[in-house]
Amino acid sequence: MSAPLIALQENIGAELTDAVTSGGGTVVPLDDADALVWKTGPQDFPTLPANVRWVQLGSAGVEQWGDEIAKHPDVTFTSAAGAYSDIIAEHALMMLLAGVRTLPAHLAATSWQNAELADGVGTLRGSTVTIVGAGGIGRSLISMLAPLGVTSIAVNRSGRDVPGATRTVTADELDEVWDDTDHVVIAAPATAETAHIVGADRLHRLKAHSWVVNIARGSLVDTDALVEALRTGTIAGAGLDVTDPEPLPDGHPLWTMRSAMITPHDSNPTGPRTAALARHVEANVARFAAGEPLAAVVDRDAGY
Amino acid sequence: MSAPLIALQENIGAELTDAVTSGGGTVVPLDDADALVWKTGPQDFPTLPANVRWVQLGSAGVEQWGDEIAKHPDVTFTSAAGAYSDIIAEHALMMLLAGVRTLPAHLAATSWQNAELADGVGTLRGSTVTIVGAGGIGRSLISMLAPLGVTSIAVNRSGRDVPGATRTVTADELDEVWDDTDHVVIAAPATAETAHIVGADRLHRLKAHSWVVNIARGSLVDTDALVEALRTGTIAGAGLDVTDPEPLPDGHPLWTMRSAMITPHDSNPTGPRTAALARHVEANVARFAAGEPLAAVVDRDAGY
Repeated sequence: MSAPLIALQENIGAELTDAVTSGGGTVVPLDDADALVWKTGPQDFPTLPANVRWVQLGSAGVEQWGDEIAKHPDVTFTSAAGAYSDIIAEHALMMLLAGVRTLPAHLAATSWQNAELADGVGTLRGSTVTIVGAGGIGRSLISMLAPLGVTSIAVNRSGRDVPGATRTVTADELDEVWDDTDHVVIAAPATAETAHIVGADRLHRLKAHSWVVNIARGSLVDTDALVEALRTGTIAGAGLDVTDPEPLPDGHPLWTMRSAMITPHDSNPTGPRTAALARHVEANVARFAAGEPLAAVVDRDAGY
Repeated sequence: MSAPLIALQENIGAELTDAVTSGGGTVVPLDDADALVWKTGPQDFPTLPANVRWVQLGSAGVEQWGDEIAKHPDVTFTSAAGAYSDIIAEHALMMLLAGVRTLPAHLAATSWQNAELADGVGTLRGSTVTIVGAGGIGRSLISMLAPLGVTSIAVNRSGRDVPGATRTVTADELDEVWDDTDHVVIAAPATAETAHIVGADRLHRLKAHSWVVNIARGSLVDTDALVEALRTGTIAGAGLDVTDPEPLPDGHPLWTMRSAMITPHDSNPTGPRTAALARHVEANVARFAAGEPLAAVVDRDAGY
């Protein structure tokens, strides 16, 4: 079997070029290529010659790619779906840990306030984390929480057991596990069903030590209800990589509450993102070379 | 086999009382007891009646207990050594994650500065963490780092392989692994050998993205050299639960550097500490009930 011939988007960088080579591919111009690796959006996407049978995209979602995919019925498109799960799960873990251990209060201190601070420091150990949306990010997070002595409850569409979770429920059954929940991580797609899935009622039913972490989409949390819950101490805090509205406007109360940690949608930032994409590309090139099924093939009908 | 009769220090709290019962013990007055669970220091420690054969202490170190231990040659003393390893390892993990993901810079922002912040965000995934002192805390940390895709290098006295570490070296061999090190976690006891084990030379040989985390004793890091390394950007940052001097004096430059995260020796704080001690006591009572060897027996000669 000869090495597959892979073309690359111009200026795609050494990391992705190396990934193609490490995966067993040979980098060639587009006119000679079996496949194309394209990192950015559909702007400037080239007309594909007939020899190209596979296009690897750089984004996890492909909402913008409908037209190009329709234009090329004989080409297999693969996304980067799943490639960034571990990176984003790591961010959620960071938020949970910094929250329960009250890092924000510690960073604000400019003297050795052991007596004031130590009583507020908690631990994830022994707690129960409910993960709303147990796709790639959720499953990765569950594996990270296990050695920390955390019980994970998974919430997914099917209710089918997620490996590593003590219990898996559907969104309809969420209230059944809510009273056992110490902390919540939101990792589900934004749909009509999941809008405000964490709203005033559920916030009230959480605990004074609870943290809510959202690394999915802002619309899953009722922002006004969250601000109220933080103001009154109904819950301990929130770690938000996404907000509603987004960007969070200047002067919004969340910016100055010590119980709110905001990261401006950078849980999957440039550096780690490229490294993760490189690992994904390398593995897919190796599969292509071996004639194996590719990972993250875009479903033309479903559009993801 | 009848339930062991266990006396408790006055006002020891429900959590530890429950632990004794859950472990299979019956709580009785000291005069009727086979064993005593004592949470605080040797002040007010009672004269032990002859029926007491075992004393469980609440601290991991027993430096203060030499006199009482000598006074009771026929009594087995157990400490809480190892009981707090997971709690402290969790703190080290929090420091590493908050550091590489630049949480301090994020918390200081009061507007949606995605463009300014995202480039600075890194990941632990793919990095190599060298753990100086691979006792209970180090081993626990290694298990937490594994699902994050981190390579752990362990440094211990014997050089004997630590499970989960890619490589284990002695302190003498530390320089051999230093160039492969992205981040350093210090978890070794304070001895003449380990004083300033992270000093100016080793700081210079770390990387601009490196974090140094110290959850052991302040003396293992050369504080002045660390301040200089942070000031000049030789390394990315430091997470310090312990400092030299300790407490860190008001006005010390570390208090106001964004690249320094200080927690005032509270990696093993009140709440989690009591829960961890309860688990340790429960397990030791169960062992006592079953006639099995107890955990963390104090070596009378070695004094730990």
